[in-house]
Amino acid sequence: MSVTAPRGFVAAGGAVGIKPAGAPDLAVVATADGRAVPTAAVFTTNLAAAAPVQVSRDHLAKSAGRAAATVLTSGNANAATGPGGIGVARRLCELVAAGVGAAPHEVLVCQTGLIGVPFPSEVLGAVGPVVAARAAGEEASRAAADAILTTDTVRKVAVAQVAAGGGRCTVGGMAKGAAMLAPRMATMLAVLTTDAEVAPGTLRVILREGVDASFNRVTVDGCTSTNDTVVLMASASAGAVPLGALGDAVAEVCRSLADQMVADAEGATKVARVVVTGAASDAEAHAAARKVAGSLLVKCSLNGADPYWGRVVSELGSAGVAFDLGRTSVSYGGTVVCAQGAPAPHDERAVAAHMAGRTVEIACDLGMGPGKGAVLTTDLGHGYIDENRATS
Amino acid sequence: MSVTAPRGFVAAGGAVGIKPAGAPDLAVVATADGRAVPTAAVFTTNLAAAAPVQVSRDHLAKSAGRAAATVLTSGNANAATGPGGIGVARRLCELVAAGVGAAPHEVLVCQTGLIGVPFPSEVLGAVGPVVAARAAGEEASRAAADAILTTDTVRKVAVAQVAAGGGRCTVGGMAKGAAMLAPRMATMLAVLTTDAEVAPGTLRVILREGVDASFNRVTVDGCTSTNDTVVLMASASAGAVPLGALGDAVAEVCRSLADQMVADAEGATKVARVVVTGAASDAEAHAAARKVAGSLLVKCSLNGADPYWGRVVSELGSAGVAFDLGRTSVSYGGTVVCAQGAPAPHDERAVAAHMAGRTVEIACDLGMGPGKGAVLTTDLGHGYIDENRATS
Repeated sequence: MSVTAPRGFVAAGGAVGIKPAGAPDLAVVATADGRAVPTAAVFTTNLAAAAPVQVSRDHLAKSAGRAAATVLTSGNANAATGPGGIGVARRLCELVAAGVGAAPHEVLVCQTGLIGVPFPSEVLGAVGPVVAARAAGEEASRAAADAILTTDTVRKVAVAQVAAGGGRCTVGGMAKGAAMLAPRMATMLAVLTTDAEVAPGTLRVILREGVDASFNRVTVDGCTSTNDTVVLMASASAGAVPLGALGDAVAEVCRSLADQMVADAEGATKVARVVVTGAASDAEAHAAARKVAGSLLVKCSLNGADPYWGRVVSELGSAGVAFDLGRTSVSYGGTVVCAQGAPAPHDERAVAAHMAGRTVEIACDLGMGPGKGAVLTTDLGHGYIDENRATS
Repeated sequence: MSVTAPRGFVAAGGAVGIKPAGAPDLAVVATADGRAVPTAAVFTTNLAAAAPVQVSRDHLAKSAGRAAATVLTSGNANAATGPGGIGVARRLCELVAAGVGAAPHEVLVCQTGLIGVPFPSEVLGAVGPVVAARAAGEEASRAAADAILTTDTVRKVAVAQVAAGGGRCTVGGMAKGAAMLAPRMATMLAVLTTDAEVAPGTLRVILREGVDASFNRVTVDGCTSTNDTVVLMASASAGAVPLGALGDAVAEVCRSLADQMVADAEGATKVARVVVTGAASDAEAHAAARKVAGSLLVKCSLNGADPYWGRVVSELGSAGVAFDLGRTSVSYGGTVVCAQGAPAPHDERAVAAHMAGRTVEIACDLGMGPGKGAVLTTDLGHGYIDENRATS
């Protein structure tokens, strides 16, 4: 179960012909009764935002933060496709709106795939039957989660629960591989649902905080796609819940989906967690962790299981944060390899064993203050290049 | 000829035992008479600056912008090596100062190699004989240029001349592969000489402008090394020259050395020039070109000779500059593939032929203003990873 785990939601997934060979490529998540409910979304900051991002932003503004459905397609990003692309994204919303009994501006749209390829609008005729097949329950939510995948190798879903009064409220979510993980398809998409009762403005804050603590703490290639979108819809079926607990549950689902994306990173053989402590502030810790995590040289070292901490120190020194080499230490899997900015005698076999594993922890202490932060990344190997050197 | 092309300079290169197997690893560039002459230097902005960078900065401040010699070693970066590393860098300057008859603070030092490995100080005893062998002429300058190479496959030297009164003034230079090109060795180093008569302050401005127009317009992996240094020494042997012409000659030598670095990029199969026009300002054009040139996805596409312009547009949209997709066009080798932010019908065979070549030109017009800029980059292939995944 994922997006239909919270009460009040139905979903569907199927094939309309965007992808070849009848692979599933259209998903819908809608309220069970077609009513527009409080909905928040976080969109890419890329100024070359794809048509679906432009249309969804417009719809969310018109509906004052409410939506009855989100429609998602995979196989074509509908980005940099000119005015025709906007028409396609609007038409998708109209078709889904007609199917669920809502107004077109009460539908959000997400698309993922190649940029700059005109969308095959002849597939729009096949949208109606998929929407009509929407249902609650395991099978429908699985079909929806499958239909948004591109080069992902596994379905990405998560559920969390919160005690609410006598009963409980649920948060569910589904996602497809991040831009940085399946960059050939250029996008990360996620849809979350909850049956909590929350006002649109509050929902926006909760989603923003959840995304900041999860999807924004992951980097694989530093590319900000044209289509990235995370949507959170709240049906109110479970009534009011403590907002702190709801925020935690949303963040937990986001974090689980982000972790699943990194774990399924194409071409990656390792997942590394870069933890920075002792920074002047949490923001500086995060910036430093992101610089190390995004370094091609650090990622190459990870690929070769090489504990070359000199590259880590070099990235910390050029991260644009308060830094003093003489106060800096670095450890791999808990073994200190650099202390006070110089080589530290250490158990080389312990470090080699840690580097050989699938999960690596690089901990850096800057000795400057109380700031701490962490970013997840992957290694950089032949697989990433093979996946991305050609689009066909 | 390179650093000894201008009158008043001698050079030497030899092996002292930092590298294995007797490979040349020590170079010296000095004034012929041991006199300290106006000297400018540009150092890495990395806060984890290596010991030689710290010592050179200190010496240049103490000598009010004058130096009698620059000593360079390859095979060990002497970075993140603690207080002992500072001692080594100082000792190198003392040994060279004794050899050329100058004060220790009149010698600059540059080192390149692995970070975080203690420098083998037992090699210092072999420095004297190399310094004693310094000479003018082709052979000496070639030996110096060879001794600073690491994973470079070719020597990098350049010379430019300027008419000065009745005679002429010369600018010569040598360099080793950029950090981003031979990142295993973690550094780009360059030494330039001229026989022009210039005050230290003016020399600083000329060098800064030359570096900005050359080494700062190259990116391969975005890593700022701990050791990057460019030095310019002016002997005054040719007398005063028009400063504009001297600046042009310095920029020309810098640009030639930068081009040679990119052309010799390890693991790279292509060199790409990303040109951005129509930006709001030159600074924004340069930022946009750098974002495209640094993109892993764009570099993967280059490796596969794939004209996937969607990635170029996506990088332009996330470059942090004024951008309007509807005004954006992209061309490969002069053929427009994207116009007004949407696919443009074009001769696909012409584009394929251009992408298959060793040199690719990606031109982007943002349609926002008069700003223009260009950055050189390389593709990202298996070779880069193979070179960098392990240090041994």
